[in-house]
Amino acid sequence: MTLFDTSLRLLDRVRAPRPVHAHCDLPCGVYDPAQARLEAQSVKACMEKYNASNDADFKVRATMIKEQRADLVKQHLWILWTDYFKPEHLTAFPHLHELFWKATKTAGEAKKTNDVTVADRLLSEIADIDEVFWATKK
Amino acid sequence: MTLFDTSLRLLDRVRAPRPVHAHCDLPCGVYDPAQARLEAQSVKACMEKYNASNDADFKVRATMIKEQRADLVKQHLWILWTDYFKPEHLTAFPHLHELFWKATKTAGEAKKTNDVTVADRLLSEIADIDEVFWATKK
Amino acid sequence: MTLFDTSLRLLDRVRAPRPVHAHCDLPCGVYDPAQARLEAQSVKACMEKYNASNDADFKVRATMIKEQRADLVKQHLWILWTDYFKPEHLTAFPHLHELFWKATKTAGEAKKTNDVTVADRLLSEIADIDEVFWATKK
Amino acid sequence: MTLFDTSLRLLDRVRAPRPVHAHCDLPCGVYDPAQARLEAQSVKACMEKYNASNDADFKVRATMIKEQRADLVKQHLWILWTDYFKPEHLTAFPHLHELFWKATKTAGEAKKTNDVTVADRLLSEIADIDEVFWATKK
Amino acid sequence: MTLFDTSLRLLDRVRAPRPVHAHCDLPCGVYDPAQARLEAQSVKACMEKYNASNDADFKVRATMIKEQRADLVKQHLWILWTDYFKPEHLTAFPHLHELFWKATKTAGEAKKTNDVTVADRLLSEIADIDEVFWATKK
Amino acid sequence: MTLFDTSLRLLDRVRAPRPVHAHCDLPCGVYDPAQARLEAQSVKACMEKYNASNDADFKVRATMIKEQRADLVKQHLWILWTDYFKPEHLTAFPHLHELFWKATKTAGEAKKTNDVTVADRLLSEIADIDEVFWATKK
Repeated sequence: MTLFDTSLRLLDRVRAPRPVHAHCDLPCGVYDPAQARLEAQSVKACMEKYNASNDADFKVRATMIKEQRADLVKQHLWILWTDYFKPEHLTAFPHLHELFWKATKTAGEAKKTNDVTVADRLLSEIADIDEVFWATKK
Repeated sequence: MTLFDTSLRLLDRVRAPRPVHAHCDLPCGVYDPAQARLEAQSVKACMEKYNASNDADFKVRATMIKEQRADLVKQHLWILWTDYFKPEHLTAFPHLHELFWKATKTAGEAKKTNDVTVADRLLSEIADIDEVFWATKK
Repeated sequence: MTLFDTSLRLLDRVRAPRPVHAHCDLPCGVYDPAQARLEAQSVKACMEKYNASNDADFKVRATMIKEQRADLVKQHLWILWTDYFKPEHLTAFPHLHELFWKATKTAGEAKKTNDVTVADRLLSEIADIDEVFWATKK
Repeated sequence: MTLFDTSLRLLDRVRAPRPVHAHCDLPCGVYDPAQARLEAQSVKACMEKYNASNDADFKVRATMIKEQRADLVKQHLWILWTDYFKPEHLTAFPHLHELFWKATKTAGEAKKTNDVTVADRLLSEIADIDEVFWATKK
Repeated sequence: MTLFDTSLRLLDRVRAPRPVHAHCDLPCGVYDPAQARLEAQSVKACMEKYNASNDADFKVRATMIKEQRADLVKQHLWILWTDYFKPEHLTAFPHLHELFWKATKTAGEAKKTNDVTVADRLLSEIADIDEVFWATKK
Repeated sequence: MTLFDTSLRLLDRVRAPRPVHAHCDLPCGVYDPAQARLEAQSVKACMEKYNASNDADFKVRATMIKEQRADLVKQHLWILWTDYFKPEHLTAFPHLHELFWKATKTAGEAKKTNDVTVADRLLSEIADIDEVFWATKK
């Protein structure tokens, strides 16, 4: 994505009455990639705090909470993938399956490391999903 | 809040690198009232679909899912109340406890009815909390 | 299944350290599509019992339990898809993503109906996944 | 509370057909601060066992289980606060919100330490809530 | 149990520093049959409210919540049975397995009915377990 | 298991509507000791990976995941014991209660150790339960 595209996209978000959420008219309810993103940010915060700490118990807790948060990332992404996206979306975005497979795999990888670049990759993959998601809402 | 304040606040949201979320620097992690709001919108959607349907089984499912979503609203709000807000916030916003007590009670009330005005009140109370929350972030 | 097959199978159960499962050597642990299949059979059983009953409360419970079981089907399938399958498997089975997308969507559809043919389709899609899974184990 | 008050209260508990629990006549069901207290005692036990042990794995488990138990303390207290207590109770006990805010914050604090005085403070705050609770039952 | 025994037992409960809970000195933590009893009382309350109501949605919710509460009864009882009780207890109370098997089966039965006598039987079976439990604490 | 057995087994999988499960005709649904066995194999795998690793964080995760998996073993076994087995089964298999008590206790023991022989004992006890289970299905 070029810087220009990014700017347009940010502007678009500002101008439109873009809610933080998306309201789905189908039986499946309300969806928003923000749910996955928030948990992924929590994963990243756990890593940062783990890396900044010398307290063994704190590190255990950071590892444990990161595991749970990464699970929530996977949950929110899986639900989006299966419940929100429809065959016509796949036609328009043929890389949809790959996007979700990679992002959920990255969430799994984030459980096994405190390397913040993994969390950043996860956030970036969720941003890609977010982009596709909002494109289907136009 | 005057219309002018609201405009400023909206502008503020736009200009600053305001993420959809909030990053907490304390051990407790990442917070955002958007999590409660999304579930409350789901509660409202369940009510609307319940009211629009004549299918008994669908109504059972809407009732059941609404119950779970309203529980999630309460969870997210309780976590904000206890984990995010600090005594200095209470000094600045003395109605904080009342805000959360009323909003979580309304979430409970939303389980017992399909009256959409209850869901709208819940969303409005979460919007009030959201306002306080973002004010503490400035 | 012939009587002869059944006999062999029963013998097999008696004599041997008969695994029903698959042991994964990677950090992700132990996988087996049997977990999804068992929950899908429970979904089907809930439908059959719903259809055979005239008791309103029983039907509520069947609907509710079916919802939970269908959720478990999705969970088990999502975990297989993201955690077990690797890029090399996708090369060998290019329809992998479609298989899982369709099966998890069918599990969602099974929540909304008591039409047993939907449960049968779900079981058939899980059988297809099972086949791919065991082929990767050879 | 004076010793005399305590004695009266204990006597009161003995004489009356005081059940271990409280039966709520409203749709919300059955409440009893004993649920929070039991989990808080578990939190304290985890700390004591952590402190008495030299086994690294045991300490990990104690930390992990304490985290879950402290979460349950918060759950039970939040439910009491939002679901059981009514505006008229707040009039009679104006410190109600503070009581619950402090106790749930202490439960959060107990996750971060193995200092038994924190668990004792938590138990004492739950005892204060218990007192208010039973006063509303008279 | 004779009335005299009952009286002694009640007296015993009063005099001794009998806590609402039991503190286990083994790694397994804190146990108390009160946890199961409270949930069983909730099961009974759900039945009573179901029977007193003419509101179809309320009845769905009562059925659903009763199911969850009965599950919690089973959980608490299973944990007592497996985690708290030891072989020496079984020697002293040879009917221990039967007690728990019957009580957990009754909890399952309580899911399927709104007949309050089933809930009363459940409460009575939990009272029997409670008696054995406290006898092992002396 | 001989190669011949393996071949038969593979053939069986390919040809037949091979069930891995058991279909219960009562309201309680679908049961299969395979569910407990799969989680017990996961417990064993966690131990093996713990023992083979020198990475402190990995060991924390293995301990944590083993705890959850051992809990699932207990859940699946408790459900079988209470929900599937009936008084007539107990008549035919008088050691039924002991089987389940020991197996669930072993699952608890497996949380506290990384001694693989404990996991092997757990698997063996589940195999005994499996044998009884399938005998009741004939």
